[in-house]
Amino acid sequence: MKQIIVITGASSGFGALAARRLAHTGHTVYAGMRDTTGRNAPQVAAANKYATEHHVDLRAIEMDVASEESCDAAVRQIISEEAQIDVVVHNAGHMSFGPAEAFTPKQFAELYDINVLSTQRVNRAALPQLRKQHRGLVIWVSSSSARGGTPPYLSPYFAAKAAMDSLAVSYASELTRWGIETSIVVPGAFTKGTNHFAHAGSPSDKTRAAEYDEGPYKGVSDRALQGLARLEPPDADAGAVADAIVKIVEAPFGKRPFRVHIDPSQDGAEIVNGVADRVRAEMFRRIGLEDLLNVTGFQEESAVGLDKAHEAG
Amino acid sequence: MKQIIVITGASSGFGALAARRLAHTGHTVYAGMRDTTGRNAPQVAAANKYATEHHVDLRAIEMDVASEESCDAAVRQIISEEAQIDVVVHNAGHMSFGPAEAFTPKQFAELYDINVLSTQRVNRAALPQLRKQHRGLVIWVSSSSARGGTPPYLSPYFAAKAAMDSLAVSYASELTRWGIETSIVVPGAFTKGTNHFAHAGSPSDKTRAAEYDEGPYKGVSDRALQGLARLEPPDADAGAVADAIVKIVEAPFGKRPFRVHIDPSQDGAEIVNGVADRVRAEMFRRIGLEDLLNVTGFQEESAVGLDKAHEAG
Repeated sequence: MKQIIVITGASSGFGALAARRLAHTGHTVYAGMRDTTGRNAPQVAAANKYATEHHVDLRAIEMDVASEESCDAAVRQIISEEAQIDVVVHNAGHMSFGPAEAFTPKQFAELYDINVLSTQRVNRAALPQLRKQHRGLVIWVSSSSARGGTPPYLSPYFAAKAAMDSLAVSYASELTRWGIETSIVVPGAFTKGTNHFAHAGSPSDKTRAAEYDEGPYKGVSDRALQGLARLEPPDADAGAVADAIVKIVEAPFGKRPFRVHIDPSQDGAEIVNGVADRVRAEMFRRIGLEDLLNVTGFQEESAVGLDKAHEAG
Repeated sequence: MKQIIVITGASSGFGALAARRLAHTGHTVYAGMRDTTGRNAPQVAAANKYATEHHVDLRAIEMDVASEESCDAAVRQIISEEAQIDVVVHNAGHMSFGPAEAFTPKQFAELYDINVLSTQRVNRAALPQLRKQHRGLVIWVSSSSARGGTPPYLSPYFAAKAAMDSLAVSYASELTRWGIETSIVVPGAFTKGTNHFAHAGSPSDKTRAAEYDEGPYKGVSDRALQGLARLEPPDADAGAVADAIVKIVEAPFGKRPFRVHIDPSQDGAEIVNGVADRVRAEMFRRIGLEDLLNVTGFQEESAVGLDKAHEAG
């Protein structure tokens, strides 16, 4: 069944790969990116070329997740063209690398904006439509760092991704009764195959950074990066994250997994999340809100699609 | 041994309790709060009265954690008075309550500022002094929500606390070689005994909030709050968090616990963190940076206080 999908940060990395593979599967895919007539014009051209050559419905769309207006405009355009949004994929993200103390509070705020506030802008733009439909799917591209191994020097990014994962979990229970499913994709560290590490930001406070890098933390930066790369098996493939997103979209409504881990380095997040997600479910049962744990809740209470709910239950 | 301690958000709640109990133990305690001549003037007077009556060294200090200048000025004042800072306690925090979709991105940013950027401002102000001393302790008051049960309607707060916990973990490994220890205190939900819940913020977007509260999520707000309160044993005491902070400060250098959970409701965070902290340590070993896991690393490498390191090791 063809779905209308919007994915953020789709100019490169996981986002570009996922957009293409989703389009290949027969869906209409809006590949969100900023500055489509400027620095990302080549990515727009590449997406168009791909669509033509492969006869798939891949559409680049202007969507700067740092701007509420841009997110609202993109969603309005999709609704005007398709009158429907089935799937939202929160993929946009940015990394930075350096000693925590050398990042200014402003830099921490910027990383939070791009990795977390971005999802809130897109949700506030798109969720009214998904809620109106009483049907939808929200996919969040989290990070194994939120619950797994966390090497030094990635603090603003790790803090933001931990917040993003937490937000995904909060939204999950607040959307089930609307008939909206949540799946969280948890990639491990992919040091190759995307520009994530190559494009990482660096601390503004060079003096502080030097106190670490030329002081007791000399060599830690290289060792952390080389260590991460060494943990990665040679056949680690960033495309596996895109494949996981496709598989979630293809799964039947009500049967999508809450989490999927794609972590060739096995940093431990899968174990921790397994425990964490059980503990979360246990609390919902203890406080009498267990129906919020999955989408059948909405259908039962609203008497919409009762047959489906019984099939699933 | 008397220590010079600064604690943020000490006008009320865990912070006010911890400041008093630390002063009682014989330490010099700077109780940081904002607006000491305005809305918190009564809290300053209360702290002074307490100090006089109990013959303890409790000093209210102007410290608005939302302002870099204010944090810098407070730290300058402490150093000018005592030429030393032994312990920094990150306690300031603020909560909000309502459906995620009804909070504006700006509100999410504000909660991140007060709960997370605040700690970065204080760290950037105080850590140069602690690093110069080659000795110190940073205590973070996290939240069981970062890894435990997470009821609906607390998303901006939960996201911020997850980020704060992540930041604490990142800093931990980046400070050990300077001789600075980290302890993370993880309180569960204390619905009584502090103003945390009573003073919670609410969503700006009242229309969206009403769509949830008068729609399928009718009653969820009350059930979540009542559920949290019901999980709490009648004898749950917010003072236990203050006691835990005192106990950490009193523990010998090099022997402070990485985490202490004070969670009468047992929401599961203690189990999840136990696994998560093991998984983190495992990665440091796998990438050859295991010396960053505890403070003996700095001493061994810098040949400062070698005897102490051997005693501890």
